[in-house]
Amino acid sequence: MGATGAVGQQMKDQLEKRKFPIGNIKFLSSKRSAGTAIEFNGQSYTVEEATPDSFDGVDIALFSAGGSVSEKFAPEAVKRGAIVVDNTSAFRMNEEVPLVVPEVNKEALKSNSGVIANPNCSTIQMVCALQPLKERFGLNKIIVSTYQAVSGAGIDAINELKDQAADFDNAATAEAKVLPVKSAERHFPIAFNAVPQIDQFADNGFTLEEMKMINETKKIMNAQSLAVAATCVRLPVVTGHSESVYAEFDSAPTLEQVRDALRTAPGVILQDDPSKQEYPMPLMAAGKDEVFVGRIRQDLDNPNGYHLWIVSDNLIKGAALNSVQIAEALIEEQLI
Amino acid sequence: MGATGAVGQQMKDQLEKRKFPIGNIKFLSSKRSAGTAIEFNGQSYTVEEATPDSFDGVDIALFSAGGSVSEKFAPEAVKRGAIVVDNTSAFRMNEEVPLVVPEVNKEALKSNSGVIANPNCSTIQMVCALQPLKERFGLNKIIVSTYQAVSGAGIDAINELKDQAADFDNAATAEAKVLPVKSAERHFPIAFNAVPQIDQFADNGFTLEEMKMINETKKIMNAQSLAVAATCVRLPVVTGHSESVYAEFDSAPTLEQVRDALRTAPGVILQDDPSKQEYPMPLMAAGKDEVFVGRIRQDLDNPNGYHLWIVSDNLIKGAALNSVQIAEALIEEQLI
Repeated sequence: MGATGAVGQQMKDQLEKRKFPIGNIKFLSSKRSAGTAIEFNGQSYTVEEATPDSFDGVDIALFSAGGSVSEKFAPEAVKRGAIVVDNTSAFRMNEEVPLVVPEVNKEALKSNSGVIANPNCSTIQMVCALQPLKERFGLNKIIVSTYQAVSGAGIDAINELKDQAADFDNAATAEAKVLPVKSAERHFPIAFNAVPQIDQFADNGFTLEEMKMINETKKIMNAQSLAVAATCVRLPVVTGHSESVYAEFDSAPTLEQVRDALRTAPGVILQDDPSKQEYPMPLMAAGKDEVFVGRIRQDLDNPNGYHLWIVSDNLIKGAALNSVQIAEALIEEQLI
Repeated sequence: MGATGAVGQQMKDQLEKRKFPIGNIKFLSSKRSAGTAIEFNGQSYTVEEATPDSFDGVDIALFSAGGSVSEKFAPEAVKRGAIVVDNTSAFRMNEEVPLVVPEVNKEALKSNSGVIANPNCSTIQMVCALQPLKERFGLNKIIVSTYQAVSGAGIDAINELKDQAADFDNAATAEAKVLPVKSAERHFPIAFNAVPQIDQFADNGFTLEEMKMINETKKIMNAQSLAVAATCVRLPVVTGHSESVYAEFDSAPTLEQVRDALRTAPGVILQDDPSKQEYPMPLMAAGKDEVFVGRIRQDLDNPNGYHLWIVSDNLIKGAALNSVQIAEALIEEQLI
């Protein structure tokens, strides 16, 4: 559901690449995109307009077409026997809905009522990197500042950056209609800028994106007493979110212990050698499946504190890949 | 000294704009740039090659021509009776050299031996915003992640970004010769990227830029026990550094108390109204004299903790303006 969107296309690519066991597949969308042709595993499919009956006989439905579409169609799919893996924020904080990153909390899948939520992109990459450290050293505090790509705001945002970037000398007066938030009153140029707003503001002064990182992290890590703070910033980067993370552990591991924990962590690639200028960057992480971690340093004042730089493709592990991995885990755990 | 550089030109502009009391002025440079014509206060000057004797009869010498030039010529200028205001890192951590941001520690000027150091750009804007809060609420911890503009790396870095940004579709393979550090072995594209290296790496895994922020902040604020951590990141922004700062106070002020302290702080402009999407951005701070602060939020777990977003023009308050303000303070305090 949402097959023609940026994440929908990545989902299709991941299903192919990972040889997901498929009997039948259908590609659904809104009326507007129905009729589009899609190639999948060497065969051509036509995108169909979603109706409640589209989900008859479906085992797993991957949703990535916006919160309102999920709210309308996910219950219909569940009613018809499907398990929905939903990539929107519609159900993430519902108590009966598991919010899952398979590397972190696969066991949460067991108690589902038909809907599994896929977390926010910036949350996924952070918990992938921090979970192996939490398991070994205990974790009590996270302070994260993000450096987020425009592709998280869709294809219109990418085009807006492209248009603005083409006029280097007039960046400050560039036309802006999409970012920081399409539905917001004011829009600001993103090219050659850094905009400290992603999603709308909550009443407490944090943005909804920041609150997602805070609340989702606690839910996924099953750690309500974990202190989490986030500042989310949009950058003129096309794809690849970066995060400057300060993490405070219950003990004081050595740098090599932290590196070892990440070296063997599933889905994580350690890129951390200052002597070779080796560290992750979004331009190089784009298109890759893994979460990259580098710039690891023990805090100079608190031996329990570490600083890390975490980068991943926000459309892949941050969305499409994680959804497909949830579907794989459902099969693996015989929950389908 | 360094009259033809990016900061040198901004110094000239500030001297004009602020009607600095000048009897005679001379513009100095290396042999390479000597002979360039400069307009100042409606008169034309020719840039002269610096020699030790250039400083005969000079009261105040503003230096911004790189550390090695300062090391060579600053002692010569001091020997001839000048006070040197040095914008390089050459003398900043020398015990007998005051490191000054006039809004914060003007009194440190009094015990100088002829050289006053101008701090690093990213340090200046941060201490301007935090000093009024430190005075009222006490300050014990800072964790900062920076979003830094390429103009801090000079005109070559600006041109590199410009060239790379013109080829949107080939960003990942763009030619890079300057950033992240001209003298380093490896160079990476900056357009549509975020590079977590500014300056070379120290042995402890922090970069020299990060260590500058840590050590200079303690020296300027006269607070050796203040815990400071920094992660410095270069962005595809031309001018204007941004900083995501977590500050922990000795007490728990209300949001309005923090805003009030900043509203009345010298050189600071409060830009903080989420309901109007009002917050600082580098594209809008470029060309301005002030330090802009917004996105102020009390930490959700620690009432003594606050998150702030601090933006300023790295060439103006981060360099040229602060140097000129130091010179003004020397006159005002009758130290010249």
